[in-house]
Amino acid sequence: MTRNSLAEKNCSLARALDVVGEWWSLLVVREAFFGTRRFQDFVDNLGIARNILSSRLKRLVAEGVLSRAERADGGVDYALTPKGEALMPVLVALMQWGDTFANAEPAPVVLTDRATGTPIAPLSVRAADGRVLTPQDMRAVPGPGADAQLRARLMPRSSKR
Amino acid sequence: MTRNSLAEKNCSLARALDVVGEWWSLLVVREAFFGTRRFQDFVDNLGIARNILSSRLKRLVAEGVLSRAERADGGVDYALTPKGEALMPVLVALMQWGDTFANAEPAPVVLTDRATGTPIAPLSVRAADGRVLTPQDMRAVPGPGADAQLRARLMPRSSKR
Repeated sequence: MTRNSLAEKNCSLARALDVVGEWWSLLVVREAFFGTRRFQDFVDNLGIARNILSSRLKRLVAEGVLSRAERADGGVDYALTPKGEALMPVLVALMQWGDTFANAEPAPVVLTDRATGTPIAPLSVRAADGRVLTPQDMRAVPGPGADAQLRARLMPRSSKR
Repeated sequence: MTRNSLAEKNCSLARALDVVGEWWSLLVVREAFFGTRRFQDFVDNLGIARNILSSRLKRLVAEGVLSRAERADGGVDYALTPKGEALMPVLVALMQWGDTFANAEPAPVVLTDRATGTPIAPLSVRAADGRVLTPQDMRAVPGPGADAQLRARLMPRSSKR
């Protein structure tokens, strides 16, 4: 499968999607969070074609999301790296949105806090002081890595046509 | 482009990806958060091909993520619905991950709290009582919508082979 790479775009969202936005990639990462380590277990649990799984694992290892370790028996284990574990908020956000908006049935999986056994809280976007923010409470401003085009776009709306 | 639909899977993550996981879809949603409403502005801001944009907008409208309204001048405006606005944590999670792990340059866009002008906090997964949770602090358990296969998979590990 060939696609245009989004990585040249001046946008961290595009770069993130370039790494984990391929069909199946985040489901492979979710499996790794569930403790799946072996190729055949990924196949069985996801119902994914072997050639596609092979391609996704290769990419995720190349990007440093998964590590690859040979076992004593000659097999291979895949495990999340710290970069891969840092995807937890992405998975939780998608899962919670899917539970609420994309799944007509009750939640198939519930994430609980091991310490109490109760379901985790819905993810919230928060200010530095902890206040929960709505989209209207936020503003996108040019960061230190913004190029000229992006700077022009992210000017206050009153100065735009 | 044809793909296997993931929607039949017993998984809210797969269903979420089935709605917004196509290449470009989340970038279109991000543009809508930035205030983009017109077809040509999406084209200009994203550098996306018109036929692909057309297909993504159609899908996002059909899924209820965007609404479509004809203007008095005969043009069309696209805007986020509440279902679309609820994707904010997904976008923030991907953007923050991209800033940290997928982008070699400094952040091109910074999301700030309008009230204070300071950058928003990193997203955290939290327990119901507000404690920040690591992946190791969480457990995935079968929810009310889990099928038999999923129930078997999410048994405590000690009872698995």
